[in-house]
Amino acid sequence: MRVKYPEETRELVEAGLERYFPAGKRPDILYEAMSHSLFSGGKRFRGILVIETAKTFGVSPKKALPTACAVEFIHTYSLIHDDLPAIDNDYLRRGQPTCHVLFGEDIAILAGDALFAEAFNLIAREQAADDPAGVLKVVAEIAGATGVCGMVGGQAVDVVSSGKQVDAETLEYIHHNKTGALIRASTVSGAILGGADEKSLRSITEYGVSLGLAFQVTDDILDVIGDPGLLGKTPGSDERAKKATYPGICGLERAQEFARERVEAAKASLSNLDSRTSVLRDLADFVFERQW
Amino acid sequence: MRVKYPEETRELVEAGLERYFPAGKRPDILYEAMSHSLFSGGKRFRGILVIETAKTFGVSPKKALPTACAVEFIHTYSLIHDDLPAIDNDYLRRGQPTCHVLFGEDIAILAGDALFAEAFNLIAREQAADDPAGVLKVVAEIAGATGVCGMVGGQAVDVVSSGKQVDAETLEYIHHNKTGALIRASTVSGAILGGADEKSLRSITEYGVSLGLAFQVTDDILDVIGDPGLLGKTPGSDERAKKATYPGICGLERAQEFARERVEAAKASLSNLDSRTSVLRDLADFVFERQW
Repeated sequence: MRVKYPEETRELVEAGLERYFPAGKRPDILYEAMSHSLFSGGKRFRGILVIETAKTFGVSPKKALPTACAVEFIHTYSLIHDDLPAIDNDYLRRGQPTCHVLFGEDIAILAGDALFAEAFNLIAREQAADDPAGVLKVVAEIAGATGVCGMVGGQAVDVVSSGKQVDAETLEYIHHNKTGALIRASTVSGAILGGADEKSLRSITEYGVSLGLAFQVTDDILDVIGDPGLLGKTPGSDERAKKATYPGICGLERAQEFARERVEAAKASLSNLDSRTSVLRDLADFVFERQW
Repeated sequence: MRVKYPEETRELVEAGLERYFPAGKRPDILYEAMSHSLFSGGKRFRGILVIETAKTFGVSPKKALPTACAVEFIHTYSLIHDDLPAIDNDYLRRGQPTCHVLFGEDIAILAGDALFAEAFNLIAREQAADDPAGVLKVVAEIAGATGVCGMVGGQAVDVVSSGKQVDAETLEYIHHNKTGALIRASTVSGAILGGADEKSLRSITEYGVSLGLAFQVTDDILDVIGDPGLLGKTPGSDERAKKATYPGICGLERAQEFARERVEAAKASLSNLDSRTSVLRDLADFVFERQW
């Protein structure tokens, strides 16, 4: 891999997750389930995006940390619910048994629900409130990106499309929403925290949209050619689940071209910004080159 | 029944839910599932509490409507997830087949997730923003009340206690959190929207806490002696599911006394307030006298 992953920021997010993990004890199993899924070695890509975008607009990493951790709570919640027997029925995630396998379906559903609630709790309580109107915009951006015109909408189309022939337009809809929306919301939230103006916000939105799509396409690609040891799961799960994917619809080579195009588009969106964007460019390259 | 239910406010909430129901079309089944569960004739008790509390502090019903509708979105989401086969496995709710029975478990999980996301989306986008700091406090109050130290925590203790002998303290913990927390958050949110001072906020919090506990105790009682036609479900489900309840632990008569005590305590909490609280008192009496 040519691109350096921002490990320092990743460690900051990791420490933030420990710090902001909701205190409470009852019942133990709920916290164990949440903790199992949250602390199983994710890339923290979305949390890093919040922080690195905020940094581009002059906000210190520490200051953006609550929002960064909140999007990681949400990402983990979405994985727990996606893995449920009624949805993707996955047994392995990040090299570990999935939440419902270890703690039961009931607790897994509730652990996901809890992480989602605690994400908004965290932003509303801990995200520096010298700009409450800005923080409310962050809540709106993230809630919108996780609702019917975002993550859940995309996941629902994915669910109803499973096993069916889907066209490229539907596939793009799924990817934009299921995966893309939260990635876009992460970059946009970072920019809002930094008080970005309208024009910059548009550029960052475009960056996030292209990046999000590229991320899901490379996910599809890794599910075909990825290394199980690096991925922490068995490749081929999309094919087994008869999921629509880019490699499945247009072939591996075209899917790789498409991912590269989106990554280049993401980087091009940054060219309008005055500020330093080298880490955001690196993150885009990482999406194309990643092996996990 | 002696107490008049605030039907006018209920109709306002109903109209608000129609208005704020998230626009979007894809996939149809997700909207049908959300709509089925949201528009099946609930009491709108929590939404009414937001509006009537806000009114007590001088806020017009219309102005508090987005938050009122958001807590109804959340209440509906919690019912959809509670009814799932992995949790309470209920087939009937408000006289209708439950969400998963009609639309499948996968779509029911996602419909709940979507309503939860759209609740925060609604508050952050539509709740009048002349006081963003106040609206952020509302987000914090509601998110906290639905997380590990609220609804989900209570539900999780309920799940792990099912079929076991539980003590009165655990039962109170379940009731306070599973049902009480969102009821308290509804009253507190209304007060925050009205710019209530610290002292008033304490009184309203006490009111909401007592009311929430009373509400769940009367729910338990109705599950023993309620009229199936009025309830929209078959009584006796708690006993069948071996759930811990107040009538089960201390007998029907003591449970009724306890509910009455909590209702009186709720009303007493209002005595410190200068403003008109007759509707809030009536709502407390309704909780004791209700047959549905």
